[in-house]
Amino acid sequence: MSGGIRLGELAERVGGRVVGDPDAVIDGVATLEEAGPDQLSFLSNPRYRDAARRTRAGAILVKPGSGIEGPALLEVDEPYLALAKVLGLFHTDPPAVREVSSMAHVGRDVRLGNEVTVEPFAFIGDGVELGDRVTVGAGSVVGTDCRVGAGSILMPRVVLYPRTEIGRDCILHAGVVVGSDGFGFATSGGRHHKVPQLGKVVIEDDVELGANTTVDRGALGETVIGSGSKLDNLVMIAHGVTIGAGCLMAAQSGIAGSTQVGSNVTFAGQSGAAGHLKIADGTVVAAKTAVFASIDPGAFVAGTPAVDHRTWKRSQVLLKRLPDLRKEILELKRRVEQLEGLAAPEVGSTEEG
Amino acid sequence: MSGGIRLGELAERVGGRVVGDPDAVIDGVATLEEAGPDQLSFLSNPRYRDAARRTRAGAILVKPGSGIEGPALLEVDEPYLALAKVLGLFHTDPPAVREVSSMAHVGRDVRLGNEVTVEPFAFIGDGVELGDRVTVGAGSVVGTDCRVGAGSILMPRVVLYPRTEIGRDCILHAGVVVGSDGFGFATSGGRHHKVPQLGKVVIEDDVELGANTTVDRGALGETVIGSGSKLDNLVMIAHGVTIGAGCLMAAQSGIAGSTQVGSNVTFAGQSGAAGHLKIADGTVVAAKTAVFASIDPGAFVAGTPAVDHRTWKRSQVLLKRLPDLRKEILELKRRVEQLEGLAAPEVGSTEEG
Amino acid sequence: MSGGIRLGELAERVGGRVVGDPDAVIDGVATLEEAGPDQLSFLSNPRYRDAARRTRAGAILVKPGSGIEGPALLEVDEPYLALAKVLGLFHTDPPAVREVSSMAHVGRDVRLGNEVTVEPFAFIGDGVELGDRVTVGAGSVVGTDCRVGAGSILMPRVVLYPRTEIGRDCILHAGVVVGSDGFGFATSGGRHHKVPQLGKVVIEDDVELGANTTVDRGALGETVIGSGSKLDNLVMIAHGVTIGAGCLMAAQSGIAGSTQVGSNVTFAGQSGAAGHLKIADGTVVAAKTAVFASIDPGAFVAGTPAVDHRTWKRSQVLLKRLPDLRKEILELKRRVEQLEGLAAPEVGSTEEG
Repeated sequence: MSGGIRLGELAERVGGRVVGDPDAVIDGVATLEEAGPDQLSFLSNPRYRDAARRTRAGAILVKPGSGIEGPALLEVDEPYLALAKVLGLFHTDPPAVREVSSMAHVGRDVRLGNEVTVEPFAFIGDGVELGDRVTVGAGSVVGTDCRVGAGSILMPRVVLYPRTEIGRDCILHAGVVVGSDGFGFATSGGRHHKVPQLGKVVIEDDVELGANTTVDRGALGETVIGSGSKLDNLVMIAHGVTIGAGCLMAAQSGIAGSTQVGSNVTFAGQSGAAGHLKIADGTVVAAKTAVFASIDPGAFVAGTPAVDHRTWKRSQVLLKRLPDLRKEILELKRRVEQLEGLAAPEVGSTEEG
Repeated sequence: MSGGIRLGELAERVGGRVVGDPDAVIDGVATLEEAGPDQLSFLSNPRYRDAARRTRAGAILVKPGSGIEGPALLEVDEPYLALAKVLGLFHTDPPAVREVSSMAHVGRDVRLGNEVTVEPFAFIGDGVELGDRVTVGAGSVVGTDCRVGAGSILMPRVVLYPRTEIGRDCILHAGVVVGSDGFGFATSGGRHHKVPQLGKVVIEDDVELGANTTVDRGALGETVIGSGSKLDNLVMIAHGVTIGAGCLMAAQSGIAGSTQVGSNVTFAGQSGAAGHLKIADGTVVAAKTAVFASIDPGAFVAGTPAVDHRTWKRSQVLLKRLPDLRKEILELKRRVEQLEGLAAPEVGSTEEG
Repeated sequence: MSGGIRLGELAERVGGRVVGDPDAVIDGVATLEEAGPDQLSFLSNPRYRDAARRTRAGAILVKPGSGIEGPALLEVDEPYLALAKVLGLFHTDPPAVREVSSMAHVGRDVRLGNEVTVEPFAFIGDGVELGDRVTVGAGSVVGTDCRVGAGSILMPRVVLYPRTEIGRDCILHAGVVVGSDGFGFATSGGRHHKVPQLGKVVIEDDVELGANTTVDRGALGETVIGSGSKLDNLVMIAHGVTIGAGCLMAAQSGIAGSTQVGSNVTFAGQSGAAGHLKIADGTVVAAKTAVFASIDPGAFVAGTPAVDHRTWKRSQVLLKRLPDLRKEILELKRRVEQLEGLAAPEVGSTEEG
């Protein structure tokens, strides 16, 4: 958007309040460190209060009562949400060319909605259905009989195995693989016999899958990612897993086979859950945690195996103090021996050495 | 397969015994929760006994002596193995079109077996040899002088670096990379000088590699994955590693450079081993474990660093009880002080505070 | 190179000294176990001393004073660095065909340097700039307005999102994704609203990224990988992260959003750091470690959460001895009770059970 927007108008758009000159014109958004006098910045993480005090930004998106002085403020209850809106105002992508490239492969019985984009070297298998405004990026492969809902975007080099279903308004980043065979083998006499994986994957609406993330289909049942859930890069969802609505899974986390994850569950980076578990709605799993047992509602867990977060923290503190505990025990032993010596010969130590 | 199969006939095919009506006709397989009266289901994990009791399935594959009542039973010693066979009976893929796409690139001096499939946008480098019935999926890249054995399948978007050797009947899932450079640098004066990686990767027969898994080639020697080994998604095999026959490596596990893994070793999810180790035949490595030392035969290890699984479990229990141990020590100290007070002035405490 | 090189000449090339016959002719390099009498091998890791004693190699690259007897020695201060040089002498790749494939897509306003290679099915977006001798592998996607510096190599199936900048002499392995959206959502009322990710990624010179590694761009600022840094396979760099110069990140490690990593930092395999931290120059992070707090210069950390490596090691030793500590406490308690019995009735135990 050229020409800038008055701070007062931005406040109206995001439902906020200006502290400062509402007629100041803002023509872009930048970080606290990089913003100049014509730009808006934001403070949502308290770690950056000092940077907010030093910023050259013309205005800052902050919560009311921030105590920040200097630049103009645009006070809103949810600065990060307001940032999302403001970025949408300033940065509108140029309208994409809507066409099916002649350098793509489009199979038989493919149904295309309106304004579909298929980039070069994309492969659309037989019987595929792509909704309105779907984009299939360069080099992506959409297997036989897949369905992709309206408005969804497959970035370059995504692979959907046959019969995968993607809902509306999803974003699948480059390198994502959906519908690959689950890791199912019947081991007999030391040999691992492949169990045919004939299920499928269903990704509901408004889901985002990060770069190189993989979601397996199961032998029989469905693997499901609930609507509004967001998965980061290099995440692994095994066969038969159900992820509820509104979950967040950070990078390199993974869920093993058949585990049922509730709604609004958070898995932080490099965490994981074993198979065949139930993880209740609203659970928060700390980074690097391994969940080995089902979890009741409202838990915040950490550690390997996962325990209540506070228990884990206390244990970690004491773990660091183990050498001290060891010393205290030795000191007590010395004192008990001294006492025993005074009381001798009535008291005999049973200690071996 | 249309028309269904008599339960008695299924029993013959899988070497089992019918408890119930052998003339009942089964026309498909489904999970315990989803199966209907014309479908077969299975119980191999005891966690699902309750689901087996409630199922509407016409029959269940179970071990003898399951105690399950209600539906007909198809008793077999290895229900999961029988499931693999039954799924093969019911679900036969339509015969693939065997052809080399005109939209693929095929280099010079390429030798193709019978009934080879090369899908659109696949790249077959010079000097490549593909055995009978090999499939190279859309967008896959087979580098110069690679060899792929009969019956092997490269799903879409697999990359084989030059000179990679793949055995017979392997399955490489989408996004797999085999033969990328090992992580080898000679650090001198703070700079990391690349050590040319000139070795190659050899994947033996009947190996499966999960989506987005990577296997590096080494500077000089070979990286080898033994026959019948199965690797899940997002697994990392570093340069110079040898994986024996019949191993299972679950998702997001990794083996560092030059480590030798024996046969029939299991690495559970998100586990790993450091470099230059020997992991003996039959070792089981629990989820999230980090192996930092070589392992003798028959071990089941857990933790970081990996120790015997029982030792790890006991330590974890006591770790949770550390706050209690701490309290016990404080209580003992109090009591010793009281005793010392009675014995005073003969006994003096040396405690600092 | 055919015909071989005299050992004396090799010594000159790598700045070393021959112990043995300088006229022996070497015609290749192999591992200690596989080398024959006409081949050179090397010993840089002391684990392999026994293999060095048994080798059939004609000569070995070693440090002075190795004590190895039998084969000729080529003594150098840095055998691994010398190996890198020697491998470069013996193995020179055939000159690649320098051309832009007619089976590639090249957009508008693309600027190509001299001797650029673009392989089949690669996609070069509008406005892209590729420096001299750049290679874009089969099936790679270079988004709109990307810049790739001279001598850099994109292996097959790399994806660069729009506006990514790659320096000179970089190597991006197959499956790498650079510039994917950061994991940024403003959660409000249980819904995760996407924060547009409008920043970009800057990869400086001489950087190597391993297979299927991903680097996200940020909402506003840049994600930066410093010159000479080397990342292994399946590594995750989140949005807004800065990696300094000369860092090493082993496979499956990851850095969360906005964390600033200094120069010459090492992250071992499967380690990670949380977001918004500062990791000082020269830090070494052990395998499987999770860094949850900023780190001062010179640290070598391990564990979850990361602590000083020695503290971690001591705690792990005591953790294994916890059952013994528990026994010692019980034994002390018994002895204190006995003492209290002698002193009774003056002393009363307050113990509950």
